[in-house]
Amino acid sequence: MSENYIEQLVKIIAKLPSLGTRSARRITLSLLKKKETLIPQLITALQEVEEHIKVCEICGNYDVESPCAICASAARESGLLCIVQDISDLWALERGGLYKGKYHILGGVLSAIEGVTPDDLNIGALLARIEKEEINEIILALPATVDGQITMHYISSLLKDKNIKISALAQGIPVGGELDYMDDGTIKLALDMRKQL
Amino acid sequence: MSENYIEQLVKIIAKLPSLGTRSARRITLSLLKKKETLIPQLITALQEVEEHIKVCEICGNYDVESPCAICASAARESGLLCIVQDISDLWALERGGLYKGKYHILGGVLSAIEGVTPDDLNIGALLARIEKEEINEIILALPATVDGQITMHYISSLLKDKNIKISALAQGIPVGGELDYMDDGTIKLALDMRKQL
Repeated sequence: MSENYIEQLVKIIAKLPSLGTRSARRITLSLLKKKETLIPQLITALQEVEEHIKVCEICGNYDVESPCAICASAARESGLLCIVQDISDLWALERGGLYKGKYHILGGVLSAIEGVTPDDLNIGALLARIEKEEINEIILALPATVDGQITMHYISSLLKDKNIKISALAQGIPVGGELDYMDDGTIKLALDMRKQL
Repeated sequence: MSENYIEQLVKIIAKLPSLGTRSARRITLSLLKKKETLIPQLITALQEVEEHIKVCEICGNYDVESPCAICASAARESGLLCIVQDISDLWALERGGLYKGKYHILGGVLSAIEGVTPDDLNIGALLARIEKEEINEIILALPATVDGQITMHYISSLLKDKNIKISALAQGIPVGGELDYMDDGTIKLALDMRKQL
């Protein structure tokens, strides 16, 4: 691969998540093979995203406008807020189409190991927003990890004096999940949290 | 993900090899997060590849010129040709820097299952080239699969009346390979082809 232009493209692609140099080379080669179609398509899509997509000043979502369509929507229940770690989680919830409130993107979770403190998260804006929008219910949809749990606990403690109903996503065996494939932690939790029928 | 520009980018990225919708979403999100730096870099790299990279009319390699730097190089041994399936194989051989001849990219291997016939491969150009460049040695560096073997046999048979030395890459246990991890086929082959010390 003596050619600098190709090497340069491989290097940039290899920076993307879940891609290493080997897959970046395969992707570059496949782009080169469809040079007339795929490369212009990709350039156009990137340019449009670069030009049009903004970060929503209220919740942190990406959209063509700020505030985003969800924050601006009158059809969305106001007063109900779902706190997520990242935009991919918002996307996951929106795909289901079951949630009708608004969102707040935290931008991460607290982590002693990675040195993430409350100041690194979008918490100040959350507190301001809770006052301003008269939020009365919060769903904590943070990851079911130790860091996620700690973050949920931290946010709950911040809000304990306010009159807000706070809940977290249910944990247990996923739909269709077989016991045989579950880790011990999930089984223990599902046992501890068992529901009376 | 209600936003069309983002969805469009996810769709195009999901078309690339070894990527599905989930990894395309992760990549799109990471591009959005580095919108100011990574997206312009990627657009520039794609535009440069689109504008400058050509297919070499002689060997099928990609380069800024046709004939490519390898075909045009006086330092490369003429008369010696290495036949590879794809450009990624040429890149792999060039990374080692051990081969000093020229290349010919076949563009695939014969396959009864996938319906690849000699007409689908870059074989006509190979035969013309062998005459014109007075090739006297050919290394068949095709994949060690059944289809690769059949293709090597086919090319050997085409050239059997010409006075050309033909060889194929050695097969056996790779360097650092542990027997425990080798498949039965490789072990059988390594045993059959064992070398007298």
